[in-house]
Amino acid sequence: MRVLFAAPARQWDEWAPALRNACPEIELCRDGDPAGFDALVYAPGYPEDGTVLDFSPFTRARVVQSLWAGVERIVTNTTLTQPLCRMVDPGLTRGMVEYCLGWTMRAHLGMHVYRQDGVWRNDVMPPLASSRNVSILGMGELGRAVATALLALGFRVTGWSQSGREVPGVDMLAGDALPKALSRAEILICLLPDTPDTRNLLDAERLALLPKGATIINSGRGTLIDDTALLAALNRGDLGHAVLDVFRTEPLPADHPFWTNRHVTVTPHVAADTRAETAAPVAAENLRRAMQGAPLLHLVDRKRGY
Amino acid sequence: MRVLFAAPARQWDEWAPALRNACPEIELCRDGDPAGFDALVYAPGYPEDGTVLDFSPFTRARVVQSLWAGVERIVTNTTLTQPLCRMVDPGLTRGMVEYCLGWTMRAHLGMHVYRQDGVWRNDVMPPLASSRNVSILGMGELGRAVATALLALGFRVTGWSQSGREVPGVDMLAGDALPKALSRAEILICLLPDTPDTRNLLDAERLALLPKGATIINSGRGTLIDDTALLAALNRGDLGHAVLDVFRTEPLPADHPFWTNRHVTVTPHVAADTRAETAAPVAAENLRRAMQGAPLLHLVDRKRGY
Repeated sequence: MRVLFAAPARQWDEWAPALRNACPEIELCRDGDPAGFDALVYAPGYPEDGTVLDFSPFTRARVVQSLWAGVERIVTNTTLTQPLCRMVDPGLTRGMVEYCLGWTMRAHLGMHVYRQDGVWRNDVMPPLASSRNVSILGMGELGRAVATALLALGFRVTGWSQSGREVPGVDMLAGDALPKALSRAEILICLLPDTPDTRNLLDAERLALLPKGATIINSGRGTLIDDTALLAALNRGDLGHAVLDVFRTEPLPADHPFWTNRHVTVTPHVAADTRAETAAPVAAENLRRAMQGAPLLHLVDRKRGY
Repeated sequence: MRVLFAAPARQWDEWAPALRNACPEIELCRDGDPAGFDALVYAPGYPEDGTVLDFSPFTRARVVQSLWAGVERIVTNTTLTQPLCRMVDPGLTRGMVEYCLGWTMRAHLGMHVYRQDGVWRNDVMPPLASSRNVSILGMGELGRAVATALLALGFRVTGWSQSGREVPGVDMLAGDALPKALSRAEILICLLPDTPDTRNLLDAERLALLPKGATIINSGRGTLIDDTALLAALNRGDLGHAVLDVFRTEPLPADHPFWTNRHVTVTPHVAADTRAETAAPVAAENLRRAMQGAPLLHLVDRKRGY
């Protein structure tokens, strides 16, 4: 089975041994005749010369396995007619859980209020998690895992997704009930994918529904939030803080106002890193399934965009 | 049943309704003839005129129920011959779990490395919790609850106590194995009580056993750590950061070097606040037991000091 490593060259050293180890039967190649490949493993940044990636010559490829959870940079590629699969990496999920829980705890405990200025402020105790409302937008694999961790710590968790499919312990809201999910969110965690439906979902009007002083944690996609409206809400004091890991342009340009706004914490897209060690077995399973004609895991619905 | 509210007057409004609600049969008093009381509920700061509290005239009292978890200010009072009980407040335990987990996550995710300076640093990803070692000194009620929460998130947890009594999922070490618990602690959580045995337990020699760059979280008692040795280890760069919630003198004096050391975060004794709502039913249960001659809960071992 010949597989093209359609990912930036700098990722070869990390991924090649992990993929070969997880799937010894593959012949992993860095280049070659497109018509000769049975599959591709893909990561954004490929091809590195910046030309548009044309999937049409890969006539024999049975699957394009993304090494990233987000596929928005490839899903709109009209030359891609082969089945496209997202990465659902258990290590990535754990990383996302840890990121969301960690920054939630920062907001919950009010860590930033303890200015190191010699003043002993112990008059206001933070409420316990059991009286703190956290809302999660996007209740797929990642949202459900984050919800489970928050519930275990005692938080009151509201989830919102298009379907509103039930999740144990979570107060689930669907579609039209987004305003309700926002209005109770002392802490709002955004885990939605980037699709035409989610772009600028959090515009000025919807941001205004959040409780005064709310914290937003966005580790979904940068396009979910209207940047200008967010900055305005923070500067007016309507919102307390935004922890942002994803941006419309990454790396976030050095002159972007997010960097200098004291109500914003920028993290450099670190919430959910695909880790070759845990992700390679998932890719390997799909490569095997493709060769056997078995149902593929985490197949992207091209209409929904994820 | 007459009960003396032996706690600072400012706490009356919070505690009196909660105690009366939890135990309607008590007659809660702010003063009166000592020989007329069946029990005392006690909190440090009483009596407020600063005189030494003399328990000997309370000849009829069957229990002194502390409203605080820590009893070091009263356990050495030689006039106290009545049974003394610690407070084990489920709200306090939750607060301690949230504090320890939150600050552990701050250290684990390296939140402080994300300086808001326009530089996109995504080259170093934090390890997952599953490859992070956290050691907890003190594995009583609070230590076990903190360990449980850390295990649920995937951390590798080592516990140390005098007895080394087993805790599911925790690598337990006893007595002499303290150096081992310290040597693997990327993050060290101190939850020991203040006793003659624990005073300055973390002196220069023991602090030197911690891995380079380790974080110390002390929400036990301020006396556990040699302040001068800690500052020296932080300033040398041997230790990475200290999050301190408890101090030898509280409030921490405004000119104390902890306030201005950039490797130290001072929080004003907020980790474990007794909450009247959840603690009053615990006190009420012990008052009832005392009247019935039933075994008391959380009875202090005067020799051990807690």
